Amino acid sequence: MSTYQLAVLAGDGIGPEVMAQAHKVLDAVEQKFGLNFQRTDYPVGGYAIDLHGEALPAATLKGCEEADAILFGSIGGPKWDTLPLEQRPERAALLTLRSHFDLFSNLRPAKIYPGLADLSPLRKDIAESGFDVLVVRELTSGIYFGQPKGLSGEGEEEYAFDTMRYSKKEIRRIAVSAFEAAQKRNNKVTSVDKANVLVCSRLWREITEEVAKDYPEVELEHIYIDNAAMQLLKDPAQFDVMLCSNLFGDIISDECAMITGSMGLLASASMNSDGFGLYEPAGGSAPDIAGQNIANPIAQILSAAMLLRYSLNETAAADAIENAVVATLEAGVLTGELLSAEERHKAASTDTVGDYVVQQL
Amino acid sequence: MSTYQLAVLAGDGIGPEVMAQAHKVLDAVEQKFGLNFQRTDYPVGGYAIDLHGEALPAATLKGCEEADAILFGSIGGPKWDTLPLEQRPERAALLTLRSHFDLFSNLRPAKIYPGLADLSPLRKDIAESGFDVLVVRELTSGIYFGQPKGLSGEGEEEYAFDTMRYSKKEIRRIAVSAFEAAQKRNNKVTSVDKANVLVCSRLWREITEEVAKDYPEVELEHIYIDNAAMQLLKDPAQFDVMLCSNLFGDIISDECAMITGSMGLLASASMNSDGFGLYEPAGGSAPDIAGQNIANPIAQILSAAMLLRYSLNETAAADAIENAVVATLEAGVLTGELLSAEERHKAASTDTVGDYVVQQL
Ligand SMILES: CC(C)[C@H](C(=O)O)[C@@H](O)C(=O)O
Ligand SMILES: CC(C)[C@H](C(=O)O)[C@@H](O)C(=O)O
Repeated sequence: MSTYQLAVLAGDGIGPEVMAQAHKVLDAVEQKFGLNFQRTDYPVGGYAIDLHGEALPAATLKGCEEADAILFGSIGGPKWDTLPLEQRPERAALLTLRSHFDLFSNLRPAKIYPGLADLSPLRKDIAESGFDVLVVRELTSGIYFGQPKGLSGEGEEEYAFDTMRYSKKEIRRIAVSAFEAAQKRNNKVTSVDKANVLVCSRLWREITEEVAKDYPEVELEHIYIDNAAMQLLKDPAQFDVMLCSNLFGDIISDECAMITGSMGLLASASMNSDGFGLYEPAGGSAPDIAGQNIANPIAQILSAAMLLRYSLNETAAADAIENAVVATLEAGVLTGELLSAEERHKAASTDTVGDYVVQQL
Repeated sequence: MSTYQLAVLAGDGIGPEVMAQAHKVLDAVEQKFGLNFQRTDYPVGGYAIDLHGEALPAATLKGCEEADAILFGSIGGPKWDTLPLEQRPERAALLTLRSHFDLFSNLRPAKIYPGLADLSPLRKDIAESGFDVLVVRELTSGIYFGQPKGLSGEGEEEYAFDTMRYSKKEIRRIAVSAFEAAQKRNNKVTSVDKANVLVCSRLWREITEEVAKDYPEVELEHIYIDNAAMQLLKDPAQFDVMLCSNLFGDIISDECAMITGSMGLLASASMNSDGFGLYEPAGGSAPDIAGQNIANPIAQILSAAMLLRYSLNETAAADAIENAVVATLEAGVLTGELLSAEERHKAASTDTVGDYVVQQL
């Protein structure tokens, strides 16, 4: 029996209640596939601030270090929004975890599920032409972490500055992630940049071209970020893998998530080169609906599936979870936000969806 | 009789043929309002490269310096895409003009015209709820022009770097542009930033808040760029003026343009603090349809209207042009890209649309 250590960081808002559903699913997978997930809960985010005065306590970080992977819920909420920026949950916990574990490769799949095209904010004919994109975002460099960063000067001439910075090595490894992923999908990488303005983007293009030579079966296209933001609306079906730097990936992945119209179904993975990773839903902590048993647990369940696939290499178990999710969606066992106003009375609760996924396993 | 000097830079692709329509409209306005527009043509872009070896010849720059405003067409095309980046039309001409004349205030209006909601790539119910946004983009600073910018290091550690940089003064003057514009519209400014990551965005927020105090009737909201990219799809009607830094404005204004589904109707203004400005269509040079008399001249005509309004203060004449355009659209005198496939046989030519606008004056 394979045994794995998982650090579970449920966090704030709807985090704990959707995490409870992921636990049920992992319990069922343990039985079915003879696996053993030793899970330890650690406080993070606003909850950790309230308990220990900081969003990422040392014990939480240590627990993550000892684990094979991190299953993350969601963090933040109005209660902690008045704190100084550096102490707020999103920054203090998420950005620190990314950088501490060198989680440079962020995979954010976004697709319109069959039958759910009506949820997309795009025009019916465009949404129905299909949308299935994997955003591969660089997560530990670029303008998020580049130095120097700060303030200088006096009076009205005082200025702020941030540095966007990418080394060849950093570009190469994320480009490899994108091409590897494209090989398992539709063999197309669209690299998003602003090479007509940024030196970083020019190096990005150069290295991406080099990496492409090792993947002759994968088509490489370059697109400017401004044009990408447009093409995603006009003809989203043209994309397969979108390779982005940290800042551009932040924008493009959220645009992609919104195009699906079903953020509650989207999971993401943030990995380093040892296969260690953090897995989390794409949506936020949604404090407004927390504790009501109405939040969609699918993104959290699919985050667990990504964890099995990418950090534990338990492909069969990951497939089983993803199939169970598809069966649940096809059976119409849906939380309220996926239903039209007229159908909302048929909404399934958070628990019911979790239980239904378990039954499909 | 008021006499004005206009530098006319028609450029490449469809530039000259749509500019011809703007000339007709300006001729008609001269008659009707007793004005005199002394127009001088100057080469720019690929056309100038072919003629003089550079995208912005000294004589063109000098002509612009002597004029009261610049009416710009569009530049670039595949023919010049193999040139070194610094010599290509877009960069060598457009970025140089922006910085030479300190055209920091870029106004990019985008709206869904009544009756044209079907063109929007957004879902029918969302498009019909309305969309009328003015993007106010900072155009001469930020990561486009910040120093240092370059390459350093060796081998795989070689890295590229770009500097995002904003002074209080630079933020203040563009924020003032946004609040002034909001006062003439719906009294709402949404400032787009990434204050959870960028020091520049934090200063941006601080100064924007300060400027807001001078406009108590204007509501100020802050939104992260990733969330803005999403909200524009989900609920575009919530926005009035969107205030953006150079890079974020590049992305957001193109997303807004695409939301209208009718790029051929969108004009933009780039101005400095003396009221001098460059006025140009939002779309590109569209080399694929150049010379066929099918390109939409409206954006170029509306660029001329913006020129009259902002650089010449000829409000009545600007209003007259804009009203004539609305009348033309309402009459269904439309170029092909604004028509559905079934109706495309009713498409009006570039010339016909220009003539119709003139008749409405
Ligand atoms: C919370 C924020 C710092 C973060 C980011 O910008 O990376 C978030 O938007 C994300 O995409 O995970
Ligand atoms: C051509 C390019 C440098 C330019 C920009 O990024 O500003 C263009 O995209 C624009 O928006 O006018």
